[in-house]
Amino acid sequence: MKLSLAYLGPTGTNSETAAIAYSDWLAVNKQQTATLCPYASIALTLQSVAKGKIDQAIVPVENSIEGSVTIVLDTLWQTENLHIQQELTIPISHGLLSFNSSLEQIQTVYSHPQALAQCQKWLENFLPEVQLIATSSTTEALKFLKDDFSAAAISAPRAAQLYQIPLLKPEIKDSPDNFTRFWVVSSSKSDHGSHLSLAFSLPQNAPGALVKALTIFAKREINLSKIESRPTKRSLGEYIFFIDLEGNSQNPSIKEALTELSACTEMLKIFGNYNILPIKLP
Amino acid sequence: MKLSLAYLGPTGTNSETAAIAYSDWLAVNKQQTATLCPYASIALTLQSVAKGKIDQAIVPVENSIEGSVTIVLDTLWQTENLHIQQELTIPISHGLLSFNSSLEQIQTVYSHPQALAQCQKWLENFLPEVQLIATSSTTEALKFLKDDFSAAAISAPRAAQLYQIPLLKPEIKDSPDNFTRFWVVSSSKSDHGSHLSLAFSLPQNAPGALVKALTIFAKREINLSKIESRPTKRSLGEYIFFIDLEGNSQNPSIKEALTELSACTEMLKIFGNYNILPIKLP
Repeated sequence: MKLSLAYLGPTGTNSETAAIAYSDWLAVNKQQTATLCPYASIALTLQSVAKGKIDQAIVPVENSIEGSVTIVLDTLWQTENLHIQQELTIPISHGLLSFNSSLEQIQTVYSHPQALAQCQKWLENFLPEVQLIATSSTTEALKFLKDDFSAAAISAPRAAQLYQIPLLKPEIKDSPDNFTRFWVVSSSKSDHGSHLSLAFSLPQNAPGALVKALTIFAKREINLSKIESRPTKRSLGEYIFFIDLEGNSQNPSIKEALTELSACTEMLKIFGNYNILPIKLP
Repeated sequence: MKLSLAYLGPTGTNSETAAIAYSDWLAVNKQQTATLCPYASIALTLQSVAKGKIDQAIVPVENSIEGSVTIVLDTLWQTENLHIQQELTIPISHGLLSFNSSLEQIQTVYSHPQALAQCQKWLENFLPEVQLIATSSTTEALKFLKDDFSAAAISAPRAAQLYQIPLLKPEIKDSPDNFTRFWVVSSSKSDHGSHLSLAFSLPQNAPGALVKALTIFAKREINLSKIESRPTKRSLGEYIFFIDLEGNSQNPSIKEALTELSACTEMLKIFGNYNILPIKLP
């Protein structure tokens, strides 16, 4: 069975590395082949699945340096029919690519905002005066280099090979460890797996509502691995809370907790159960 | 008594609007005059206070559309001697400024990343093909307009007057309400006020540690108005939790909670008690 898999392209992005790792896992473990379908933005990647055009999407959800990829959280909350199926984590490498061989002559650096943010300390130290230009992906940044000798791009080092652009700095990093979690999302509900992600908003003007909601997990000793708030975008101080927890929604204690939570939240969305795939990169 | 007040400049930013509102409040309520000192970035604004060069800094901490200003949270956590003194909220207006009078001819939009993010839906709808360029502040973006007729900047509409640049679109917004919370920070500890902000990291490999920490507040019915996680930047899945709560650290129940919290966290930082100032803009 052939499966279509959307990711943030074009070829050479870290999302593509994750997509390749996941499709290798599918081939070995599920005897499935995946056709990789690049999209121009993370929002469009997710929408391709919500609209039924593509079977699955793989999107970055959190980076160890820069934190959550908020567009993914916001889109999962706002869109129907998106369910998390699997999670995988891959190491991220950033290089500085340019046709110029002198760091001193670089005046502009192009990249995806997440990559610029992950390298902000390196940029402040080595290129404090450059102009930073946001592009829709790390490889999209490369198309500006040919016409501008004073420009560089932050991309995966393997993109240097793919597009035959010299690597001015093979590795730039703010922290020794740089990893990104990816979620595989499809439109079918997922009840299997060791992890569960959900989000909820709370009734307005209800003091103590957040503590009440969190107590539901605390009193059952359900371990929250992450909690994050995002604005509802309606009014300052109103949040959507995103929670990752360990367990399965069919487990009686978690089932009970979710029923209780549903009664004291304004809106509750279960994004699904999923396993964390043991991905080994070559 | 004259007080120096750092903010993200140059003149015309939303931070300056907040700084002016705060200095007006100081004049009326504390009989103090403030000298406004513009800085080139939010990090430098906070560091001016940490290094003892400036008395107070006013920085944006959270926007109703885009969420937390993560550089503020990260800097408060990483820097000694920064204590929150006051909070105020101001409405944010964004306009599109350009010497070009035709939206169709705009090819590049400059602004601070927060302003670009707050207007991303408007940009996708009306200028889907433009290049977005990050600048260190919304008014810093204006200096690129004179030499480039195809460029526009997202800035406060009052910057159009200050710098005599035509307003191509007087108001662009993704949501009807756009407000930003600002914190006034100084190097002296603050024990007065109705609100308290803190952050903590948890011991590694301690399952249930977050629930344990949150239960400390829950069982005392202490209302958390916000909870947010940021990566420790050491390893994926390790977080610093930022919490805003209602109450004062001298209140016996909160005092007790903080002592208990200190015993079960790896590191705990109290950013201070503060009041929320009733600011009316002209």
